[in-house]
Amino acid sequence: MPRGRTKVANPETARRILAAAEAHFAALGMAGARTEEIASAAHANKAMLYYYFGDKRRLHRAVLENLFRQLRKTVFAPERSGTTARERLERFVGAYFDFLASHPNYPRIVQREAMGATPDFEWMKREYLRPFFSRLVGAVKDGVESGEFREVDAKHTAFTIMGMTTSYFAAASVFSSVAGYDLLAPQAVAERKQSLMDFLEHALMRRRTRNR
Amino acid sequence: MPRGRTKVANPETARRILAAAEAHFAALGMAGARTEEIASAAHANKAMLYYYFGDKRRLHRAVLENLFRQLRKTVFAPERSGTTARERLERFVGAYFDFLASHPNYPRIVQREAMGATPDFEWMKREYLRPFFSRLVGAVKDGVESGEFREVDAKHTAFTIMGMTTSYFAAASVFSSVAGYDLLAPQAVAERKQSLMDFLEHALMRRRTRNR
Repeated sequence: MPRGRTKVANPETARRILAAAEAHFAALGMAGARTEEIASAAHANKAMLYYYFGDKRRLHRAVLENLFRQLRKTVFAPERSGTTARERLERFVGAYFDFLASHPNYPRIVQREAMGATPDFEWMKREYLRPFFSRLVGAVKDGVESGEFREVDAKHTAFTIMGMTTSYFAAASVFSSVAGYDLLAPQAVAERKQSLMDFLEHALMRRRTRNR
Repeated sequence: MPRGRTKVANPETARRILAAAEAHFAALGMAGARTEEIASAAHANKAMLYYYFGDKRRLHRAVLENLFRQLRKTVFAPERSGTTARERLERFVGAYFDFLASHPNYPRIVQREAMGATPDFEWMKREYLRPFFSRLVGAVKDGVESGEFREVDAKHTAFTIMGMTTSYFAAASVFSSVAGYDLLAPQAVAERKQSLMDFLEHALMRRRTRNR
């Protein structure tokens, strides 16, 4: 099919393809998703998809880069001075939680990569996952050093925080049907955030009051 | 290829196919795994695979059922009387952790299903995930009612425990390279278990001592 100039110059089409690709990769994985179906869901065609994104692998990478850019904007905000380690950790985890809640495809797509451990995603680890992990480990270490947090292993604590925060969203559809209610309903997400921050606080903070 | 009687009557071949399928489904998902490659990895051929397991979907289900049977044996042990809610929860989470550590393919395969939310896996939710979740929620509720645990939301706490326990193993390969060491090395797994149980204990238990 010939590529018309109006289609070529239409960034709205590229955005629709990217959004459709994000949903398809999240639901089916890169191997399972089909470019024909992505193009069709975007009210486009395969020629337009290949014109804008090259091939399925490059489209997949464009989807990941788009998500990571948004994550970076939200989570890696510059730190304010004069805050406690607890405030910094809570802001970081809270921002990550809010990002997950507003980008339901993100954890599913990234967890698929994490499970598959594809060699193509060295850049993803280098550019995003390592800085994210380091920031989280650093926030825990700061709290241990300042005496706000208990003496915990910072790396394992970072794995625990990432796991308990991400998994709820990654498995939301199945766990909704296991639990018998919609885990992504606004009220459930609000309760989730409260429960998570409460759990984290009690797991980490030194106690200064009895029997809480 | 004709099926010879010696091949047909060889359960060892079926076991090899099942083990190869488990590894391939864990690494590539059901869509990405290829029956030719599974058969080849099992030193078998496609005809033998189809003879024993029917088709790729049935083979995938056989892999899941085999894993769940082992999980049930380990985790759903009859509860001893005269134990505290804390002991019951620790035994349950500890047994689940040990199962994950000794079955590294399990969390990757199940998490793929959880993410894809395929309608075929109603039986998996009914037979395994719901009873597992109910048992975990029940253990948390018991501890809240007996006053051993803080007043927490039992369902969210169950999601948190499942997420923090499972995600480490599900993402072990990528997180090993993010963290810079092998997360599945015996020493790392032992430290992980200790850190996890410590985190859980402090998150849930009422404090009876100051400043721990």
